[in-house]
Amino acid sequence: MTGPTTSQPVHPAHSRVLVDGPPGPDGTPVRVPVTRVALTNGETFDRYTTAGPGSDPEVGLPPLRAAWIAARGDTEEYAGRAARLSDDGRAAVRRGEASAAWRGERRTPRRALPGRRVTQLHYARAGVVTPEMRYVAAREGCDVELVRSEVAAGRAIIPLNVNHPEAEPMIIGRRFLVKVNANIGNSAVTSSIAEEVDKLTHAVTWGADTVMDLSTGDDIHTTREWILRNAPVPIGTVPIYQALEKVDGEADRLTWEVFRDTVVEQCEQGVDYMTVHAGVLLRHVPLTAERVTGIVSRGGSIMAGWCLAHHRENFLFEHYDELCAILASYDVSISLGDGLRPGSVADANDAAQLAELRTLADLTTRAWEHDVQVMVEGPGHVPLDLVEENVRLQQEWCHGAPFYTLGPLATDVAPGYDHITSAIGAATIAMHGTAMLCYVTPKEHLGLPDRDDVKTGVITYKLSAHAADVAKGHPGARAWDDALSTARFEFRWRDQFALSLDPVTAEAFHDETLPAEAAKTAHFCSMCGPKFCSMRISQDVRDRFGSGTEGASAGEAEAGMRAKAAEFLELGGTVYVDGGASSVGSP
Amino acid sequence: MTGPTTSQPVHPAHSRVLVDGPPGPDGTPVRVPVTRVALTNGETFDRYTTAGPGSDPEVGLPPLRAAWIAARGDTEEYAGRAARLSDDGRAAVRRGEASAAWRGERRTPRRALPGRRVTQLHYARAGVVTPEMRYVAAREGCDVELVRSEVAAGRAIIPLNVNHPEAEPMIIGRRFLVKVNANIGNSAVTSSIAEEVDKLTHAVTWGADTVMDLSTGDDIHTTREWILRNAPVPIGTVPIYQALEKVDGEADRLTWEVFRDTVVEQCEQGVDYMTVHAGVLLRHVPLTAERVTGIVSRGGSIMAGWCLAHHRENFLFEHYDELCAILASYDVSISLGDGLRPGSVADANDAAQLAELRTLADLTTRAWEHDVQVMVEGPGHVPLDLVEENVRLQQEWCHGAPFYTLGPLATDVAPGYDHITSAIGAATIAMHGTAMLCYVTPKEHLGLPDRDDVKTGVITYKLSAHAADVAKGHPGARAWDDALSTARFEFRWRDQFALSLDPVTAEAFHDETLPAEAAKTAHFCSMCGPKFCSMRISQDVRDRFGSGTEGASAGEAEAGMRAKAAEFLELGGTVYVDGGASSVGSP
Repeated sequence: MTGPTTSQPVHPAHSRVLVDGPPGPDGTPVRVPVTRVALTNGETFDRYTTAGPGSDPEVGLPPLRAAWIAARGDTEEYAGRAARLSDDGRAAVRRGEASAAWRGERRTPRRALPGRRVTQLHYARAGVVTPEMRYVAAREGCDVELVRSEVAAGRAIIPLNVNHPEAEPMIIGRRFLVKVNANIGNSAVTSSIAEEVDKLTHAVTWGADTVMDLSTGDDIHTTREWILRNAPVPIGTVPIYQALEKVDGEADRLTWEVFRDTVVEQCEQGVDYMTVHAGVLLRHVPLTAERVTGIVSRGGSIMAGWCLAHHRENFLFEHYDELCAILASYDVSISLGDGLRPGSVADANDAAQLAELRTLADLTTRAWEHDVQVMVEGPGHVPLDLVEENVRLQQEWCHGAPFYTLGPLATDVAPGYDHITSAIGAATIAMHGTAMLCYVTPKEHLGLPDRDDVKTGVITYKLSAHAADVAKGHPGARAWDDALSTARFEFRWRDQFALSLDPVTAEAFHDETLPAEAAKTAHFCSMCGPKFCSMRISQDVRDRFGSGTEGASAGEAEAGMRAKAAEFLELGGTVYVDGGASSVGSP
Repeated sequence: MTGPTTSQPVHPAHSRVLVDGPPGPDGTPVRVPVTRVALTNGETFDRYTTAGPGSDPEVGLPPLRAAWIAARGDTEEYAGRAARLSDDGRAAVRRGEASAAWRGERRTPRRALPGRRVTQLHYARAGVVTPEMRYVAAREGCDVELVRSEVAAGRAIIPLNVNHPEAEPMIIGRRFLVKVNANIGNSAVTSSIAEEVDKLTHAVTWGADTVMDLSTGDDIHTTREWILRNAPVPIGTVPIYQALEKVDGEADRLTWEVFRDTVVEQCEQGVDYMTVHAGVLLRHVPLTAERVTGIVSRGGSIMAGWCLAHHRENFLFEHYDELCAILASYDVSISLGDGLRPGSVADANDAAQLAELRTLADLTTRAWEHDVQVMVEGPGHVPLDLVEENVRLQQEWCHGAPFYTLGPLATDVAPGYDHITSAIGAATIAMHGTAMLCYVTPKEHLGLPDRDDVKTGVITYKLSAHAADVAKGHPGARAWDDALSTARFEFRWRDQFALSLDPVTAEAFHDETLPAEAAKTAHFCSMCGPKFCSMRISQDVRDRFGSGTEGASAGEAEAGMRAKAAEFLELGGTVYVDGGASSVGSP
């Protein structure tokens, strides 16, 4: 049973269709979106996809999961925290309003009934298979028991706040497809709400699996509202950024109470996972003194500054259990921030980084005691020879909790190309077991990414993630490569474009030199021209051998080849029957 | 002793200067170019560089090595092969002239005196340290004996034709900096001589260590003449392409005689290394029958077609010793083409590829018997988990001869981004011992690269090569990262740009959001804005600790920290003194 959705595919040969997943207890299957690629040879190829975006930004997405959440009967609606103008920062207070108030539906917030735990980890541990788990299994093409057991073991998370029913369930764990997060969000210097919603749409269109709203400028609350209501993917945040705004940017005035208030505000809005820098301990800070680049995590540096100013232990660490109890009520996942990650290859895998990782391992276990889902963040900048150690130690120390890394960048020398230097590290670390990659855009270290940078970052990271899936031998991953390469070898240019990660760019590059329609079926391209197309020649060779030599002895093959050689000369004596084709590289 | 050269640096803080290398027997040092980066703190940083291009294309470069070659007294000038219009293809014959005849100086060709061997391998084996070796040692910052011994062992090559005296010596070997080759050249469908010379200049400007002219269209001979006379880097070719033109593109009419004539023509012009597909044997061809993408090397497919048509063994294999004898007379290096490399991840490390590699190992040894320098070409398309095996087998089987790989691409699904998919494989294979990487541009599989694609390909591969140098712990490699990261941490924006692999792009990206001059010294950028700059905060933390805690006990450190905390609050109680700075990623 399939049917179209309202979202916009990126290529005419693409359609978004819903396919049936595993049936629930009542026999009704979950239905999950795929991107179906129609090939010119009559076949189709289905790709993992997020159905959204397809929303009118002013209205938002429909609440896909609302009925599932309600049916469990373990949550309640409640009045919620009263909104304050200061939630949108000092500029909003001055103006008396946010820049572009959200005018779509406002749902009453929902939380766990007293004494109930409503996290996917709780259900999984109890042996309950939720619709979310069935949805995920259908998307991943795996058994639903694999999903349940990996979530139950803490080796995978399904980040889904009960107040973000618009989100399509997805899973982050090393046994599943490697995921990609895209960071968006304004800063004090640049950007508007509309631009951020546009970046969200663009990120999801090109394949981002989650999006983090890292806004630090004006209108933080309202920007997030627009993003959440239009987000078909889980949304992550770093609540300390907004908390800092609430104390006028003076880090030493931060308190647990201000932070808690911000966390509750964001839980009620629907944030699915939150980065918490609870592992930056007072005793770790001196370990950064001799580094080349000190502390490069915003949250890490804020908490280090606070610890220093007060000479007290990090309040996020001290109130960690209280924090977990709050998050458990909404099924908000924790992303344990690596506030002391290396910001240069010189600082990789140093004492500060590893001391914090030890603390993050303890915090992982403590979150699990509250049935809170956890992933652990990782670097940063790491030379290639030290990459594997990062994921090995994290997996060992943190009991297999999903690893979520920023790159890492394999060298510091290429600002402007840091999507590439980090894609190298990202593919490598994902191959060794990182579950989700946080993208890096070409603007890293230089400025705030615009929508084009967002696309470049997402595409670059999707290819890194897929390269890792292929290297891991993930079931079915290579089928995509094989489909595209077969299309290439058979000169099905339109199919090669349609199967590309970015069909728009692939087709545009081809058409720069050979724009004519005829070139879409030609047995060559401008790279080698008609006579030097290796694939064309190779096909001739194959035609003359056939596949009949498979399993033949060397003698038989040679005899067959001799016969074929004679026949070949008879047929015209040249391998260039009507031109050449797309070669993989030269010479 | 240093002095300026005439070439054009890419940034105002860059200058090309000549620095003294090891002295020769007469006490005169060789002088090698470096790019000297002048930093705003008064320091300088020298980067490996090629002095050229700095030539007037109509005139060409001065013959840097002419005196060294002459001084050895083991070569002679001779009349040389008579030029023919057909050297420039059928179109030139029709027109009666090449499109843009070379009007600069034409030197008389030079070759070894009868009975003499004039290759760097011959000299190295004889214990002779040449000026070329001293030049290379100075560029690499290593001992000249390392250069001589690695060349003598066949583990490194210095590709330098006696007829290309314009080239600055460089070395390809796993003990040295990883090198990058850029492919240029026209095809039957597009491009002109002027465009190709422009691509050469662009490639060298951005750091290409060698350039291959893979032209397959009109004016092959003349295009190559312009390129060679303006090339300060070794030039490689694939002679079979031109040989095929000489037989009107009919592969079955190819003969050893036509090929030999082409090789001599190119040896006399000054080509420094030639790709020869002598490892595509008759018995290997059936091994490709079941592949997803057959044979994707142009040269490989041409030779496979020839073998099939004639049912005879590859004439390049049969006449290999005669070929080596010719190449030895000019010190032209062989690049053993991997005609059966995989063109899709499905075909990686298969029987066809490995059978050919076994043959290339034998051909390596046979070339060494002629004192001919050899490198071995490698793939292609390889999933990340199979990359290391490629270089391990090649190094074992080919007795450590330098490996020269095209990428490899880690996935097939991203046409339009194949510079990135291949940079991932390239950095990985180089870390494991590949000596030179052949770049892949964004146009791979889609069309002929233009000058912008050439730059993107070179920059992408330079960063991959450098990432590998850092991962290998190559002496001095990380100093560049450290210099840039230190500049970043100290908010020396201009230095960060100047030290970048591509200063132009880095500065342009920064200026897109903060173009004002003041932003060049600001302690933040648009990415995080002034308040959220982790590096700024981190510097405050450091200022208050100082470096005095190094080696202090935990107790001492804590006491010091307590004192600092008090002082910090006294000084204003906020870490945001005057803003933030460039953070390495978020959150």
